[in-house]
Amino acid sequence: MNAAGIIVEYNPFHNGHLYHINETKRLSNADVIIAVMSGSFLQRGEPAVIDKWTRTKMALQHGVDVVVELPYAFSTQKAATFSAGAIDILHHLKCQSFCFGSENGQIEPFLRSVERLAEKNEQLTALVRLFMKEGMSYPSAQTKARDAIFQKDPLPLDLSKPNNILGFHYVQANDTLGSPLMPLTVQRKGAGFHDVKASGSIASATAIRKRLFLTNEAIDDVMPSSAAAYLKNRTLHSWESYWPLLRYHLLSIHPEQLASIYEVEEGIGPRLIQAALKSDSFAAFMERVKTKRYTWTRLQRMMVHILTNTDKETMQQAERVSFIRLLGMTENGRAYIRSIKKDIPVPLLSRTASGSNLLALDIKAARIFASAPNFPKDYADSLFEQEYSAPPLLL
Amino acid sequence: MNAAGIIVEYNPFHNGHLYHINETKRLSNADVIIAVMSGSFLQRGEPAVIDKWTRTKMALQHGVDVVVELPYAFSTQKAATFSAGAIDILHHLKCQSFCFGSENGQIEPFLRSVERLAEKNEQLTALVRLFMKEGMSYPSAQTKARDAIFQKDPLPLDLSKPNNILGFHYVQANDTLGSPLMPLTVQRKGAGFHDVKASGSIASATAIRKRLFLTNEAIDDVMPSSAAAYLKNRTLHSWESYWPLLRYHLLSIHPEQLASIYEVEEGIGPRLIQAALKSDSFAAFMERVKTKRYTWTRLQRMMVHILTNTDKETMQQAERVSFIRLLGMTENGRAYIRSIKKDIPVPLLSRTASGSNLLALDIKAARIFASAPNFPKDYADSLFEQEYSAPPLLL
Repeated sequence: MNAAGIIVEYNPFHNGHLYHINETKRLSNADVIIAVMSGSFLQRGEPAVIDKWTRTKMALQHGVDVVVELPYAFSTQKAATFSAGAIDILHHLKCQSFCFGSENGQIEPFLRSVERLAEKNEQLTALVRLFMKEGMSYPSAQTKARDAIFQKDPLPLDLSKPNNILGFHYVQANDTLGSPLMPLTVQRKGAGFHDVKASGSIASATAIRKRLFLTNEAIDDVMPSSAAAYLKNRTLHSWESYWPLLRYHLLSIHPEQLASIYEVEEGIGPRLIQAALKSDSFAAFMERVKTKRYTWTRLQRMMVHILTNTDKETMQQAERVSFIRLLGMTENGRAYIRSIKKDIPVPLLSRTASGSNLLALDIKAARIFASAPNFPKDYADSLFEQEYSAPPLLL
Repeated sequence: MNAAGIIVEYNPFHNGHLYHINETKRLSNADVIIAVMSGSFLQRGEPAVIDKWTRTKMALQHGVDVVVELPYAFSTQKAATFSAGAIDILHHLKCQSFCFGSENGQIEPFLRSVERLAEKNEQLTALVRLFMKEGMSYPSAQTKARDAIFQKDPLPLDLSKPNNILGFHYVQANDTLGSPLMPLTVQRKGAGFHDVKASGSIASATAIRKRLFLTNEAIDDVMPSSAAAYLKNRTLHSWESYWPLLRYHLLSIHPEQLASIYEVEEGIGPRLIQAALKSDSFAAFMERVKTKRYTWTRLQRMMVHILTNTDKETMQQAERVSFIRLLGMTENGRAYIRSIKKDIPVPLLSRTASGSNLLALDIKAARIFASAPNFPKDYADSLFEQEYSAPPLLL
């Protein structure tokens, strides 16, 4: 059987994702689609709008055959680490190809850019470090360094576009492994990643979340109806739900403990605590702490690690993919997993009980994901229950 | 001027407290009554029903002239430490006497019991240690040890009664200082400390809290009307308000961090975390964690320290009274404080800003006291505000 991998968050699942799945099937000619999906907390440092089980159902009902979880140690990281974890998992699961959405839409520019950046790697790293010392944020420093190095002969890829950046890192991670997977890309349709106004029947997940949380507009036109149905009358998760917990943690934590948390840099601690004292919402808090040096996303990731109390030491230990957790499968997906099971080089876990040590970080993240003070009790209880005893979903 | 000291929690202020103040005046013949009052968290390991500022007003309106705060490092401790801190403060404030309510009602048995226990101190300590090793709680071990030692010639004081115990420790603490204060006691009127049903116009604070939280009965008959008015339509604090924060902390804390918290003993950590996972209220959690070895009060104190993230090292550093914080004064109280101010051996603080390092523990406790997720925003903001910028109340 021929498997193609995709890397997703489905926050929430929408028509553009459906298009991506169908195009992946067409381009790869695969029999099986495997999705690596982020669990409770996502790459931009946010809780998922809905739990991973519901998002798994959305995926399985729209063409995905196997959903596995991208562990916390990768799902909440900058693009390079995020991509390395996801590609590693797809490789372990014997995918022959992987396919990502990008603004560019052609694979050649990605391959060529990875190659050319590899040649200039040392120069680039040195320049980025220099610009960051001058107070620039990591993404700005990267852009400036690339512009400087490739001024005369520009890269064939616009690396200011968010999906081009992710795609670039997927291709680079695959390259690092010796390119065991064939990279494919699909041009993103409809609204750009950052567009707030949705156009046509495809809207970005960002636009859909704005509708859900801010404008209360209908979402039925931009999501498959069965996926939209899962969001109706549901408790939705946003940073504001967790603000009382984050604030409490900032007000009770020892300065040395705060400094030991992953991504918390020297000197920012007192600033965070002062801002927490004065803010009665997460939005107000973020407005107070943001500076030129820290991008919003980087600060949000820092806050996820503070919320989950995840320290530097733990994240260093979690640097390699050491297990794969199954979230759900179709019949077709089960047949595929059965056929490759004995060759997977890391444990394939069906329940949390079967490998608690390996999963410690993910279990903690799921517990805290379920712990927002204002969630209805039944709902929170069901999230806890599911995390502990639920086997993978079967469709 | 002649000052008499009292040690109070006023949780909340009731007719029995008014009687105690009046009797203190009568017995001591003092011109000034000074109350050392616990701040945000109390001796039985509970948040105060209402904030310390409101309780200060209740005191000043009913015969107390000066209210100072018993710091967190003493207010949340077992009777001996609690008493040592309170008596130290009354001594620093030049009180000539102190007066406490007791079941016994005569001072002689207290003096005699302190003396006789001092003679048998070594024996007693050894026996208590032995019984605790056998799995008994500290209070049970103490009772058993005393019974064994004084079997033939019983102490003249019933030390199974809660107010006799506290009184005993006050007198003992005064004795340790060389008895600079004259001890006085008033017999408690009406219902016993632990009685739930109130009789006549005096009810215990425990009985009044039951009315407030459980039966919703009127409280006007057992409190001065101006004090009762403060409780009408107010946000009341109970452990349940803080349960989402305590639970979150237990689910996110590292096991070594948990072990470093004050009063958390080896081996209890995993039990606490498992119970937190399964409980959706503080009451359910406590039912799960209590054992023969731990009294309810001791467990609650442990939970206060976990909630405030107060570690063993910090509490060891806070062993002596190193400052006195003024919460409120009458005109008469101001005149007295002015007259002794230059002779107080520790800083007398009017605002938190004036001695933040000394006050760190109390400020943290007050912040967390104000941080329960379901408090109305205006209310929480006003508590924060008051803690930082309010001068002592003046009446």
